[in-house]
Amino acid sequence: MNLLPELLSSQYSLVYNILSFTIASMGASFVFFLMARQQVGVTYRPALLFSALVVGIACYHYFRIFDSFESAYALADGVYKPSGKPFNDAYRYVDWMLTVPLLLVELVAVLHLAKDVSRKMLVKLIIAAVLMIGLGYIGEGELTNMTTRAIWGTLSSIPFVYILYVLWVELGTQVKTQSETVRGLLKVTRVVLVATWGVYPITYLLPMLGIDIQSSVVAIQVGYALADVAAKCGYGLLIFFIARAKSEEDGSLPVA
Amino acid sequence: MNLLPELLSSQYSLVYNILSFTIASMGASFVFFLMARQQVGVTYRPALLFSALVVGIACYHYFRIFDSFESAYALADGVYKPSGKPFNDAYRYVDWMLTVPLLLVELVAVLHLAKDVSRKMLVKLIIAAVLMIGLGYIGEGELTNMTTRAIWGTLSSIPFVYILYVLWVELGTQVKTQSETVRGLLKVTRVVLVATWGVYPITYLLPMLGIDIQSSVVAIQVGYALADVAAKCGYGLLIFFIARAKSEEDGSLPVA
Repeated sequence: MNLLPELLSSQYSLVYNILSFTIASMGASFVFFLMARQQVGVTYRPALLFSALVVGIACYHYFRIFDSFESAYALADGVYKPSGKPFNDAYRYVDWMLTVPLLLVELVAVLHLAKDVSRKMLVKLIIAAVLMIGLGYIGEGELTNMTTRAIWGTLSSIPFVYILYVLWVELGTQVKTQSETVRGLLKVTRVVLVATWGVYPITYLLPMLGIDIQSSVVAIQVGYALADVAAKCGYGLLIFFIARAKSEEDGSLPVA
Repeated sequence: MNLLPELLSSQYSLVYNILSFTIASMGASFVFFLMARQQVGVTYRPALLFSALVVGIACYHYFRIFDSFESAYALADGVYKPSGKPFNDAYRYVDWMLTVPLLLVELVAVLHLAKDVSRKMLVKLIIAAVLMIGLGYIGEGELTNMTTRAIWGTLSSIPFVYILYVLWVELGTQVKTQSETVRGLLKVTRVVLVATWGVYPITYLLPMLGIDIQSSVVAIQVGYALADVAAKCGYGLLIFFIARAKSEEDGSLPVA
């Protein structure tokens, strides 16, 4: 996003407020996940700790994004004009590089599968996640040549599809022995994962769709922020519900 | 680094984003090590507390380095020019003076050797670490006379080699009674230690190798940051795995 457009006051405020909303959501979720560990059995606490790390890391990055957005604009004659300072959107990729692997660790950790099954699955998922984000990052920098952008985007989709395969097919086989409640929650969690991760490629495509750049900048920021809240806070909450259900089932729910 | 070179926008961004990535990694690791103490036996919790202190101290210093780097540059005509404010890289030495002895304490603490063995080994290791960093610091200030720089660098390598001797030979004898899992993890931990600590002398040598100063500045910052993440977060994670393995073996793994 090297060439920022002028923004109307209403457009600027929308982005500004959504970014602040996200900081508050991530910060509150951080405290919740840390404290809620005591509401689940010991076995499931690491999953909640990973949830807390994800939203903690995201909270830090949203402070940075917020500050960067604010300093990239200056109010003049009722409209927001680019101040000349760049808006550093790369924070998002740095954030995902750390949080996406952790989101996958959360999910595998809460299911508490056999050790070697978990380990093998995590190695595959983490490598795929790092490839997906790395390839997307290279393409994101390309704002003029849309063919190059499309090629990197397509390459980045391959590990994404592979992650979906591992979560549906391989993980699907592993969870057959889990209770109906847990499998029901797991289905919702995976749908949240696909629905929210699906926002990223759509947002990535926006500059190729010929939308005017003002709407595009606003839509990208609002889209990414809301997707992040759902993919991190909402998803973490579902992980918490799974941990509660499993603690109840195996009698490890803390009672005193 | 008194004479900063002009940097391209892409070079500046790379350093900027890596420094921010390091802040996020150190901060998340701080929370993780503090909380993960509850996942290991009481005997091994001090080791995890030391891991937390190391990354907490590093997180603070990376905030300082980030701010110093940011204020040392000003954007003009699409390139980053030195603003005139110095970039204070001495934060790194201050950080190491505190964290390197703690990293050695972590390692000795998690092994839980006989008290007098631990104490004697730690005294030797800490004195050597302080000498290594102090001598390196004196040489780092020398950017014009390469002979003087080389002499201080060589002096600083002597305690470094001595540390390696203590960790391989003396510690090697002590851990013979430990389980195979623990010895395996310990081997990986020592390799991480040498591989990451090895980055520092290489980075120290860079100004003597006649590399152009722009690439040299970028490589130094990226090299130090990634080495710090591996040497502090990655190394701490290995200490956590050792603590887990030992807790399982001696039956002190918390279950409720």
